Amino acid sequence: MPARRVRVAFLGFGIVNQALHALLARRRDGMARDHGIECIVTGVASRRLGWRANGTGLDPLAPSGFECAGVHEWLVASAPDVVFEAVPLDPHAGQPALDYLRAAIAHGAHAVSANKGPVVHGYRELSALAAARGVGYRFESAVMDGAPVFSLARACLPLAGLTAVRGVFTSTATIVLEAVERGLTIADGVAEAQRLGIAETDPSYDIDGWDTAVKLCAVANVLLGGDVRPHEIAREGIGALTGDDVRCAAREGQPIRLVGEIARDAAGTVHARCAPVRCAPDGPLGVARGATLVVHFEADVFPGGLTVTSRDPDPTTTAYGMLVDLIDVVGAIPRSDDG
Amino acid sequence: MPARRVRVAFLGFGIVNQALHALLARRRDGMARDHGIECIVTGVASRRLGWRANGTGLDPLAPSGFECAGVHEWLVASAPDVVFEAVPLDPHAGQPALDYLRAAIAHGAHAVSANKGPVVHGYRELSALAAARGVGYRFESAVMDGAPVFSLARACLPLAGLTAVRGVFTSTATIVLEAVERGLTIADGVAEAQRLGIAETDPSYDIDGWDTAVKLCAVANVLLGGDVRPHEIAREGIGALTGDDVRCAAREGQPIRLVGEIARDAAGTVHARCAPVRCAPDGPLGVARGATLVVHFEADVFPGGLTVTSRDPDPTTTAYGMLVDLIDVVGAIPRSDDG
Repeated sequence: MPARRVRVAFLGFGIVNQALHALLARRRDGMARDHGIECIVTGVASRRLGWRANGTGLDPLAPSGFECAGVHEWLVASAPDVVFEAVPLDPHAGQPALDYLRAAIAHGAHAVSANKGPVVHGYRELSALAAARGVGYRFESAVMDGAPVFSLARACLPLAGLTAVRGVFTSTATIVLEAVERGLTIADGVAEAQRLGIAETDPSYDIDGWDTAVKLCAVANVLLGGDVRPHEIAREGIGALTGDDVRCAAREGQPIRLVGEIARDAAGTVHARCAPVRCAPDGPLGVARGATLVVHFEADVFPGGLTVTSRDPDPTTTAYGMLVDLIDVVGAIPRSDDG
Repeated sequence: MPARRVRVAFLGFGIVNQALHALLARRRDGMARDHGIECIVTGVASRRLGWRANGTGLDPLAPSGFECAGVHEWLVASAPDVVFEAVPLDPHAGQPALDYLRAAIAHGAHAVSANKGPVVHGYRELSALAAARGVGYRFESAVMDGAPVFSLARACLPLAGLTAVRGVFTSTATIVLEAVERGLTIADGVAEAQRLGIAETDPSYDIDGWDTAVKLCAVANVLLGGDVRPHEIAREGIGALTGDDVRCAAREGQPIRLVGEIARDAAGTVHARCAPVRCAPDGPLGVARGATLVVHFEADVFPGGLTVTSRDPDPTTTAYGMLVDLIDVVGAIPRSDDG
C-alpha cells in the first residue's frame, strides 16, 4: 500500500522516547509495508533540548529545528499528527504530563503517552476531549511497561465480563524482595536496586505501594469502569516486612510479592487493594522474578483466569507499547475485512 | 447506539456451538449496549437436527425451521451474516469443515470457525476467498481453546518481530503425563483422561503429537508467514516415554510436557517441532497443569518473552473466542477514535 506520512513529535526525550525513536527507525520498512505509514519527526522537547520543531523534519539526536517558547508554539510549529508523551512527572498529580496532553489533544494531535499519572487523574477528561477533537488518547505502556493490557482488553476481551484483575506491577518491589530472600535487609535491597538503576533516587514510591496503587487505578478506571483514586486504595507496602517473613515464605516455596488487585462485586462496586502477598509457585503471580511483570484477568469465560506475563521488559518494550498505540490511533490496526 | 441485526447460523451444534448459543444469550444486553449488535439465529445444522433454517428466526434448542437438502440450500434459506462452524471433523484433512467454510464464504457470509483443520489446509485459500467476497474468516478458538492468540497478534503485537512461538497446546497430553507422575502407566493415564471426558475415543491424535502439530501449523502459517503442513513437522509424542522418565523429571521439579515450537531463523525459514520437553517451574511452560494451555512469544521487543496462560478453559472459553471473532468480523471492535 502507498505509505501515508505521519508527523510525530517527542514530548520528553529520555530513555523511553529515545528507545521509541530507535525502534521506529528499525521498524521503518515494516511500518510502510504492513501499515502504510511513514513517520517523520517534526518536533522534540526536553529540558535539555528545549522546545525544538521543524515542520519539514528534524533529527531528535541532533536537533536543528526552531526553538519555540512553549508547548503551544511547539505544537503549532511541529504540527504533529501524533505526540509521544514520556516526560518525567510528579506521580501524585500527573503533572506536567497532564497539561501537555490536554494541549496536544486540544491542538488536534493524537496523544500516545507512557505515563500513568494522566490516566489516573485525567482519563475521562482526556478521553472526552480526544473524542470531541476526533483523535485518540492511548497509554498502553503506562501499566505493564508495554506488554498488552489496554489493547488486549479492547481487541481481545470484549464482553469477557471481567470481574477482577490482579498483578505484579512494580518490578522494583520484586527485586528488593529477592534481595531480602538472599539475606539482605529491605534497606540494603533498596540500595542494590538503586545501584542497578532500577529503583528511583526516592524509592519510597515503589516500596510503599504507591506505584502499584496508581497503576491499579488506571486498570480499574479504564477496564472495570471504576472511578478510583490512588489515595482511596487500601495500600500496604513492603517496607514493614521483616527479613524473616520474606525468607520464610520463600523457603516454603511461596515467595512474597507486592500484589495489586481490583475486583468488582456483584453490585458493581470496584474494590482495590495493594499489599504483600504469598504467591504459590503454580499460581499466576508466582512466576514474578526479577523485572517480570504479570497481569491476571478473572472472568466467567476464563474459569481459571487468563494471565499475561512479560519477562524482563526493557525500555524497548515500553517503546513498543507506544508503537502499537501509534498504529492504533492512526487507524492502521487490521480489522475484519482488511484481509 | 441503535442495535444492528446480525443473522447468525450454527454449523454443527455440539458442545461448542451450544455453549456459544448460551453465551450469546447471556451477553445479549452487552452486545447491544457496547457493540450495537443484536443476533438473530436463522439456521442450525447438525447430524441430529439436519439442515434447519428460518429466515425470520428459530430456536436451535427446539428448531422448527424448514429442513433443507444441504449446505447450499441452507445458506440461501438462512441467509446468515455470520456462520459459526464447529463440526466434528477429520483432523487430517480438515473435512467436512473446509468445504462448509468455502460454501459459507462464497455465499457472502463471514465465517467464524473453531476448527484448526481448515486453517492448516485452507488458510490462504479461505482468506483470499473471504477478501474477494468482502467478508472475514476468523478462527480464534482453533489453537488455545478461545484464549487470545490470533486477535492478540493482530491487534496487540503488530511489528513485534516475532521470532519464535512455543506452547503447551494439547491438554490431554498434560493430563496423561500428570497421571503418570502419580504412578500410572501411559495407557492407564489415557484411560483416565477418557473417563474424564477429556481424551477422544481415539486418543492417539493427542498422544502422538498430531494435535499439537496441527495447531503449530496454524500458528506458523498465520503468525509467522510460514507454509508448513503437519506431516512436515518433526513430531515426537509422549507414548514412548517411560513412567520412570516422567516421574524422575517431576521429582526434580521439571515436569515433562508435550511442547510445540516454531521458530523463524535469520534467513526467514520457519522450523517447527513437537516433542516432550522438561519444563522449568519458573519458565513460561512450567505452569501447565491440568487443562491449562500456554503460548509463549519471543520477539526482540520482549527480552524475556510474552506469555499468555489460560487456566482450565472450558467449552464456554472456546465459545468466547468465537464471540470475539463475531464482534471482529462485523466491524464492532472499538478502534482509535471510537472513544
